[in-house]
Amino acid sequence: MTRIRLTLQYDGSAYHGFQKQENAYTVQECLENAILRLTGERVSIICAGRTDAGVHALGQVVAFDSTATIPGERWKMAVNTYLPDDIQVLASSLAGADFNPRFQALSKQYTYYIYRRDAGRVMFRNYALCTRVPLDLAAMREAAALIVGRRNFRAFCASGSSAKTFERRLMKCMVEEKGPFLSLKVEADGFLYNMVRIVMGTLMEVGQGKYPAQRVEEILLSQDRTLAGPTAPPQGLYLRRVIYPD
Amino acid sequence: MTRIRLTLQYDGSAYHGFQKQENAYTVQECLENAILRLTGERVSIICAGRTDAGVHALGQVVAFDSTATIPGERWKMAVNTYLPDDIQVLASSLAGADFNPRFQALSKQYTYYIYRRDAGRVMFRNYALCTRVPLDLAAMREAAALIVGRRNFRAFCASGSSAKTFERRLMKCMVEEKGPFLSLKVEADGFLYNMVRIVMGTLMEVGQGKYPAQRVEEILLSQDRTLAGPTAPPQGLYLRRVIYPD
Repeated sequence: MTRIRLTLQYDGSAYHGFQKQENAYTVQECLENAILRLTGERVSIICAGRTDAGVHALGQVVAFDSTATIPGERWKMAVNTYLPDDIQVLASSLAGADFNPRFQALSKQYTYYIYRRDAGRVMFRNYALCTRVPLDLAAMREAAALIVGRRNFRAFCASGSSAKTFERRLMKCMVEEKGPFLSLKVEADGFLYNMVRIVMGTLMEVGQGKYPAQRVEEILLSQDRTLAGPTAPPQGLYLRRVIYPD
Repeated sequence: MTRIRLTLQYDGSAYHGFQKQENAYTVQECLENAILRLTGERVSIICAGRTDAGVHALGQVVAFDSTATIPGERWKMAVNTYLPDDIQVLASSLAGADFNPRFQALSKQYTYYIYRRDAGRVMFRNYALCTRVPLDLAAMREAAALIVGRRNFRAFCASGSSAKTFERRLMKCMVEEKGPFLSLKVEADGFLYNMVRIVMGTLMEVGQGKYPAQRVEEILLSQDRTLAGPTAPPQGLYLRRVIYPD
């Protein structure tokens, strides 16, 4: 039995998120089906970050055990043969028997994209938050910088979350502009449920001048979800990269 | 009865092209259904350029007649209310009773996109030709420049076309590079069936060094479809803009 590690990209539009569930098709199920068809084995996949319905991945990392004697780097092509064209293995390798893509991750990077043009927005409707509302970038950047650090992010966590602690270390929170796109790039040692989308929704309110950037510090300290902005829609969110000690 | 002119963008992924047909859902049918629900009238829409299945539009122009007393600029919002989120009216106005979006067009602009990165290609699979094959841009540009002018484009027309003449005036044929994208931008007073996709397929062969740029001139003069390159896939193609005397 060997443990296999895969790096994946997927278009989350057609899936009810990563994690397997009753009565809904998920990325995990699709991947496990591909491996079943390839090896004849029913494997159980664990992932680095459970993306929600409609959320995409550029570098999700998963692991599973198999008795198949396929060389590590050959798994990529082998699994891709059985995957639909909205899920693709980018890299594969053999991993240590104790490799856990979730618990061994040092940090994860997410990017949220906003598309700000009318032209072509039908093409981006599943891949970005499409809006032409004027946004004050300087204010958004000021607010983004205020929440970096080891902080309690309870105010930016969906209510009903089963998290035991709300402290996370946010190493990066930056708003960038490139052509018609705005992006929010975040990196943290862990993310609470809907955290990136709630941070995005809050920065959007700052960008629209609903309250000053400094208010974001107060929202953070309040630990009160109702004071933060709305949860931004899933289609703008991408799990970009997972960072491991190696 | 007044004639209405609409400018549309659409994601062609889910449609069997623009033009109405039996047993397949098309952009025209979807649009006519929206107008039926809005006005109660069954209209017959004419378009500037009949895009194929999977081809997109950033600025398709259509026209139809209606007895509804909706002001010209209000048609945009009214029709959008009944359209799915992959078709969107960008502008609307009243047009002269003799306005024909196809025959009165001075020229049309198409763009073909190639995406040249592995990262994110699942997101672009319906919106660009995704390939990492190395391409010699200088050779492609040289070849593109050779076919500009009033020429007989029979070699770049799908066989079986019902076109009566094969002469068209190609005003623009340019290969551009922007980040991970290559684009082919063309403008002509008219296009033959599959013309842009065959030009793209031929420039790809030049870019891959299968033959020198100068061969494209010979292919053009041969008027022989079998000498040109393959028809590039539809998903990279966009009807960008239609130009009228006004």
